[in-house]
Amino acid sequence: MTTTHSLDLVTRDACVAADAADPLASFRSRFILPEGVIYLDGNSLGPRPVGALERAQQVIAAEWGEGLIRSWNTAGWFELPGRLGDKLAKLIGGRDGETVVTDTTSLNLFKALASAIRIQQVDQPGRRVIVTERDNFPTDIYIAEGITDFLNSVAEETGIRYEVRLIDAELTLDAALDGSTAVLALSHVNYRTGAMWDMAEVTAQAHAVGALAIWDLAHSAGAAAVNLNGADADYAVGCTYKYLNGGPGSPAFIWVNARHQERFWQPLAGWWSHAKPFDMADAYAPAGNINRFLCGTQPVTSLAMVETGLDIMLDADFTAVRVKSLQLTDLFISLVEQRCASHPLELITPRDHAARGSHVSFRHPEGYAVMSALIARGVIGDYREPEVLRFGVTPLYLGYADVWDAVEILRDILDTSAWDTSEFKTRNAVT
Amino acid sequence: MTTTHSLDLVTRDACVAADAADPLASFRSRFILPEGVIYLDGNSLGPRPVGALERAQQVIAAEWGEGLIRSWNTAGWFELPGRLGDKLAKLIGGRDGETVVTDTTSLNLFKALASAIRIQQVDQPGRRVIVTERDNFPTDIYIAEGITDFLNSVAEETGIRYEVRLIDAELTLDAALDGSTAVLALSHVNYRTGAMWDMAEVTAQAHAVGALAIWDLAHSAGAAAVNLNGADADYAVGCTYKYLNGGPGSPAFIWVNARHQERFWQPLAGWWSHAKPFDMADAYAPAGNINRFLCGTQPVTSLAMVETGLDIMLDADFTAVRVKSLQLTDLFISLVEQRCASHPLELITPRDHAARGSHVSFRHPEGYAVMSALIARGVIGDYREPEVLRFGVTPLYLGYADVWDAVEILRDILDTSAWDTSEFKTRNAVT
Repeated sequence: MTTTHSLDLVTRDACVAADAADPLASFRSRFILPEGVIYLDGNSLGPRPVGALERAQQVIAAEWGEGLIRSWNTAGWFELPGRLGDKLAKLIGGRDGETVVTDTTSLNLFKALASAIRIQQVDQPGRRVIVTERDNFPTDIYIAEGITDFLNSVAEETGIRYEVRLIDAELTLDAALDGSTAVLALSHVNYRTGAMWDMAEVTAQAHAVGALAIWDLAHSAGAAAVNLNGADADYAVGCTYKYLNGGPGSPAFIWVNARHQERFWQPLAGWWSHAKPFDMADAYAPAGNINRFLCGTQPVTSLAMVETGLDIMLDADFTAVRVKSLQLTDLFISLVEQRCASHPLELITPRDHAARGSHVSFRHPEGYAVMSALIARGVIGDYREPEVLRFGVTPLYLGYADVWDAVEILRDILDTSAWDTSEFKTRNAVT
Repeated sequence: MTTTHSLDLVTRDACVAADAADPLASFRSRFILPEGVIYLDGNSLGPRPVGALERAQQVIAAEWGEGLIRSWNTAGWFELPGRLGDKLAKLIGGRDGETVVTDTTSLNLFKALASAIRIQQVDQPGRRVIVTERDNFPTDIYIAEGITDFLNSVAEETGIRYEVRLIDAELTLDAALDGSTAVLALSHVNYRTGAMWDMAEVTAQAHAVGALAIWDLAHSAGAAAVNLNGADADYAVGCTYKYLNGGPGSPAFIWVNARHQERFWQPLAGWWSHAKPFDMADAYAPAGNINRFLCGTQPVTSLAMVETGLDIMLDADFTAVRVKSLQLTDLFISLVEQRCASHPLELITPRDHAARGSHVSFRHPEGYAVMSALIARGVIGDYREPEVLRFGVTPLYLGYADVWDAVEILRDILDTSAWDTSEFKTRNAVT
């Protein structure tokens, strides 16, 4: 039996004792979680912070209902994308003025790719390859394809051709990066396996061949240590509804290294990206700061709730969060390997701490049915093609005994083959 | 004195009597409006429907809080964009399956323009001009410029050049449309003047020269009669937070004529636009329906509230809404011209009913200060550069006596020069 866990938690009592000694234990009370649920899907949709409902009521009843149009000024709606961006930046190694909370991760990736391509067209013309990986979350690949398809439609007669190149079993990162690479766009933590790239090392590797580096932090913002400026990254995007607990579909974020902000327009140049939106000028003049990466009017109620989740995360000691995250994923791996050893579960998450995000995934030939049975018993993880059981670990509201209990229920289901496909649908989550 | 009003409402008592006889009077009770306010800015941000808070509470407390990730299926979150789109379609002459509520108006315009350009590249190569108007809402011009700038960046060495051509004082619509035009993109009702294009006639004119027609319905959906299929339009976009009362920054919509839906990708090809998003395939395969115009995960709380506003509008007889809208704008014009005749107010809204949306605008040399004074007295309209006082008229919650009272307050302010710039800021609204 291989184990990597860093605590000696071989009994439920030891887990209960670890919970009692947990410096983050008090954060559990800042979330609402239903009775009888062990929630291992905070990597897909974080639970509701206690303050979220009140914040939404304030927006709807007071700011919208009473303030009406005046609330754009009096309630600070205009400043929300940048103000929340500055808060979020503290979790990802960003400086003030480099981040806005806006739009969706897909759209923000489009802006980052378009801006990076535009820079390369001028600085190093002829670089027309976007490198990403086949195992990336699909939307990241599709957005890269959408951009190249659109550009190629113009260039058809000219021989100019943009291309998406996928790292996979046959093509390593090293081999994929070369003098034709305009930009490398990777997810920091893989949505399926939980594997994490070394951001600083890989960014340096991209820069060494003259490529720019874009990081999708969907599965690492609020989940793992991220230092964008420390890694000298060029752009980053990510989501606020997973580990940041912003609410279903809450707006995403984009971070742009200050050195790139004023170079070119991103093509989604809506009026919020204008230097003076309320001059109503017919000529476009891009904002001279991160506002250039805004586009249109944001959904205020959903956006405002993002702050409630961010404030909780900012109150926590993030070093303690990361330590506990690794202890919980270690514990999960170790218990599954001890207690479910006779079953065909294959760990696909790295054992190496430096290469692991905050979720653990196992393949099982009946993965879909097993996850259905788990959910029916209150253990909510999720299923990802092919055959992957995915369990998110979130130190602010999950304890050691929760992990013990979840693995016990998994063991019981496997031992008794008590699965059933009626409860669960494939389409269950959002990354 | 010229008057166009169709009711004889020359006293406040006559207005009160008209309110008493108003078949739409009962709709007022379905909105929350603060005491002491006459709200003439529903064309910028509609007020809060009574049911909006409860709907948001349901999403946050029950669907998010209790249902957690399961609510994507059990609460129908996945279906919201299309389900709300089908409801909205009834107000704009769309058929089922042609509309989704998603993203922002700016982003949806980008999708429509990109899709139209892609079609023209194949059907009529060489057409590279987007025609729009200098007086269009700025974001529409900026988005067109963003697309052409991005395409031209590829084409730089090739001589291929995309162009935005603006209709203005020197260039009529007739002169702007020619064999180089790929697409005509206009706002149906002008955000500043309230002037309305004849959609059927102008669409036919575009088609006659081989161009596609895109309509921005931001100031006409829910405000004026719109029949997209009747006009044989190609694409339309619009917003839900004005006359549709969806809430601050609520997601926008896009309508695509069924004949164009399956032709090419729009480049914002996020995973929600995929034929089978949850197969997590690395290869992009666009949805064979309107879902192709989706992109990423939507802000569920803000999106769900859109339905509350739509349901109210769908309960109303829209013919009655339009009749009352014209009576109210007629009344507004007539009263201002009678009672403020000695002041330098210049009507910039068309008197012709067929050419008028649902707001009335006057220029005044001290427009900004006058609007500040009006707002301080509870008459909330808004100000638009240059010098424009803009008053939105919304038949579901505004009565004839409201218009009378608003004009009386305007008259009093003008007669006493009682204006003051401290209350109001330029940046006050969202189109």
